[in-house]
Amino acid sequence: MNGATRQLPGRADHAAVRRANLAVAVRALRAGGRSRAQLAADTSLTKATVSSLVTELAGRGLVHTARPGTTAADAASNGDTARSGAVGRPGQPVELATGRVLAIGVELNVDYLCGVVLDLGGRERVLTRTAFDVPAGVDATADEVVRLVTELADRTLAGTAFATADDPAVLAGVGVAAPGLVDGTRGTVRVAPNLRWRDVPLHDLLADRLAGSALPWLPGGSRPWDERLLVDNEATLATLAEFAGDAGPDDRDLVLVTGGVGVGGGLVVDGRLVRGSGGFAGEVGHLAVAPDGARCGCGRRGCWETLCGLGALLDLAAPPDDPVHRHDEDLDVRLDLLLERARDGDERTLAAFDRVGRALGHGASMLVNLTNPRVLVLGGYFARLGEFLRPVAQAELAARVVAPDAGGVRVTLSRLGLAAAATGAAHAVLAPVLDDPTLVPTLAAQSPATTQSPTSAVHASPTLVEEIG
Amino acid sequence: MNGATRQLPGRADHAAVRRANLAVAVRALRAGGRSRAQLAADTSLTKATVSSLVTELAGRGLVHTARPGTTAADAASNGDTARSGAVGRPGQPVELATGRVLAIGVELNVDYLCGVVLDLGGRERVLTRTAFDVPAGVDATADEVVRLVTELADRTLAGTAFATADDPAVLAGVGVAAPGLVDGTRGTVRVAPNLRWRDVPLHDLLADRLAGSALPWLPGGSRPWDERLLVDNEATLATLAEFAGDAGPDDRDLVLVTGGVGVGGGLVVDGRLVRGSGGFAGEVGHLAVAPDGARCGCGRRGCWETLCGLGALLDLAAPPDDPVHRHDEDLDVRLDLLLERARDGDERTLAAFDRVGRALGHGASMLVNLTNPRVLVLGGYFARLGEFLRPVAQAELAARVVAPDAGGVRVTLSRLGLAAAATGAAHAVLAPVLDDPTLVPTLAAQSPATTQSPTSAVHASPTLVEEIG
Repeated sequence: MNGATRQLPGRADHAAVRRANLAVAVRALRAGGRSRAQLAADTSLTKATVSSLVTELAGRGLVHTARPGTTAADAASNGDTARSGAVGRPGQPVELATGRVLAIGVELNVDYLCGVVLDLGGRERVLTRTAFDVPAGVDATADEVVRLVTELADRTLAGTAFATADDPAVLAGVGVAAPGLVDGTRGTVRVAPNLRWRDVPLHDLLADRLAGSALPWLPGGSRPWDERLLVDNEATLATLAEFAGDAGPDDRDLVLVTGGVGVGGGLVVDGRLVRGSGGFAGEVGHLAVAPDGARCGCGRRGCWETLCGLGALLDLAAPPDDPVHRHDEDLDVRLDLLLERARDGDERTLAAFDRVGRALGHGASMLVNLTNPRVLVLGGYFARLGEFLRPVAQAELAARVVAPDAGGVRVTLSRLGLAAAATGAAHAVLAPVLDDPTLVPTLAAQSPATTQSPTSAVHASPTLVEEIG
Repeated sequence: MNGATRQLPGRADHAAVRRANLAVAVRALRAGGRSRAQLAADTSLTKATVSSLVTELAGRGLVHTARPGTTAADAASNGDTARSGAVGRPGQPVELATGRVLAIGVELNVDYLCGVVLDLGGRERVLTRTAFDVPAGVDATADEVVRLVTELADRTLAGTAFATADDPAVLAGVGVAAPGLVDGTRGTVRVAPNLRWRDVPLHDLLADRLAGSALPWLPGGSRPWDERLLVDNEATLATLAEFAGDAGPDDRDLVLVTGGVGVGGGLVVDGRLVRGSGGFAGEVGHLAVAPDGARCGCGRRGCWETLCGLGALLDLAAPPDDPVHRHDEDLDVRLDLLLERARDGDERTLAAFDRVGRALGHGASMLVNLTNPRVLVLGGYFARLGEFLRPVAQAELAARVVAPDAGGVRVTLSRLGLAAAATGAAHAVLAPVLDDPTLVPTLAAQSPATTQSPTSAVHASPTLVEEIG
């Protein structure tokens, strides 16, 4: 019977209902503060249930109750913490206490680390970019990532307007994005050619180092840093960031294709990131688009990135001694040079853009034929050159996608730039809290006058009946 | 706030908990009958909850309580219906009354219709194949589908051992699989080249005809035949059948690739069929695998099916006057001829199998790189020639998939043969009942002595407290 049991969908019990309703309330409040009555109307929950949920969220420090005309954010940034965690009167607007939970994302790249701190509302609190020679060493990189995480935590978790002794911030987790093939289930970097890494147990290396740090992890097992630390592929995590940021409410299916030295990507199907059975999904760069084509860095022939990776573009666009090939020059500067030439009508540049745009559309047509997404996001250098690449790619999609009108796909340009993967990594570790706000502990500093007052008890009690009756 | 509201996940309420628990119980019982105590242990539900669930399922005619040593199926096939719907003593095994709910699936093909009836347990009750000239006319085909559905219903729904006046069977729905591009959200066949159909509103044509039939539809709106009728692409539905039949309990990610005149396929990601935003997902046959290759029937160049569709295989394997090209001969006979030649070491046949196997593996590598499935099922003629095609395709996958060991994918051969799409169509309309057993009405014939006895009430009452407390 064991096999059958494992096939069963998760059973729902009372605690699961409560968690789901708390999650519904938090997600609604992420879109903006509102009164309990409005929250009830927006979530189809009863007013009594909503009052009980707000009481619990306040007890966990996850909502503020703002004075009319004042937002909780104003109050927090003014250092006004007296009402933090207070339940307030039913007519007062309820707002998410976004600083109560923070999430850190770090992206490893060849020559820099990018760090991002997101708050509970999904807003960016800090973005940093630090030059670092990642290929120089695995241990040195792990040390540097932990240093960066600690620095980001120090800058955001303690002593800021949104984290006080009365209302301390907790860390939802640390997400790390790596360029290469990552076994997302174990957090091992299997192959990262650009970093010259092979079978690096990055999750474990970082967890060992984080064990010594004094970060305010969410509770979780005896080694919360172990459980709250996630390592995954950069493009997979960037896909999550695009979905969190760019997708509209009806966009449940999204594909990201991102151009750099390699070509990466990821799929969101019906609102969920596709990770694959072993965590290896979304390996788009080595799709065998031109089976007898040029040799790829991976040893295979005709991989998609041989046709529209950065190397292919630069080789098509300019002779070897041209400044666009100068690796010591910032990539943005070199891409600007190409844009300038294309806008001036330079034929070689325009021909290169045309050829790369067609290769981009050709490979993308496979993703669109397979998953029929609502949105195809072009990221990395594809976005930067989107003015020229997007129309060509769209024409190719129209020709190669079987469904009428390319299945209705909307082609957009990423606005996340270099922060996409780190942002996605932070979103990934924030998600468990959004799915289950009870992971956030009850405030120790909580005064009995707030959530445990007789008034609150009156709210809570009929609610329970309402919710479960 | 409307946008934000639509983004919210479904709220959970008491009725939803109850439905989810009923669904858990039904899915567990599909794997085999067992005592209430065992059911409780297998589902992590309390015994009191399980007793209450069994009482409700019995009231809806969805479970039998078997005498020790006798299965409900035995009882049913013996015409012993006295205990149908009875709650029985707590120690007695509970078994699914599989005949209470039936689902009909029909596949349209160029020259035949295939019909399948599945019961609640997912087992095949009837399989038929009827020669019919589908391309000859849309209206004639719709008439014939309705005639076939009515015939299948007559054979299975009434007067059989598992459907009596005391325990009537209800029809979960009718699923129809069509070869071509189907807008699954509307049930319109957009393009079906082999049927010479374009923009055929098949769902509506069938619904209008079914309105006049006297089938025991599950309740649903004023036109249940409208709501319980599903039209979708054949390969998409076949994927569902493979997932229901062949996948093990840990197989949450599956890809089907099926070979015929065209090449079709579908994806299951994390246990769910990928349909795409417009219902057009899984269009694998026209992946632009060889962009400068041969002209495809769709007008594009180098589509995957030009390399490994049946036409490509036959052209490679034998000259035009060879018997394998005789369209009036059964395909199985012609494939057997090729198998015989290959086993005898015929070089041309073996070379053709090698080339087609490599093309199969090449295209499949794209699906595997993108979704990292646990299982890749080869269907249609790929399965029939699997002895030769599978090893070649596997070698190609090993070479072209980026993840180590091809991401751990297991390549299997479909055992569903020509019934795959019709079986999947029936599974598709059965699924809503498995997700929500309360769709099945309470038995009118239910005796007060069974579910409404004081004994049952004693079971039901503490259960409610247990479940929601």
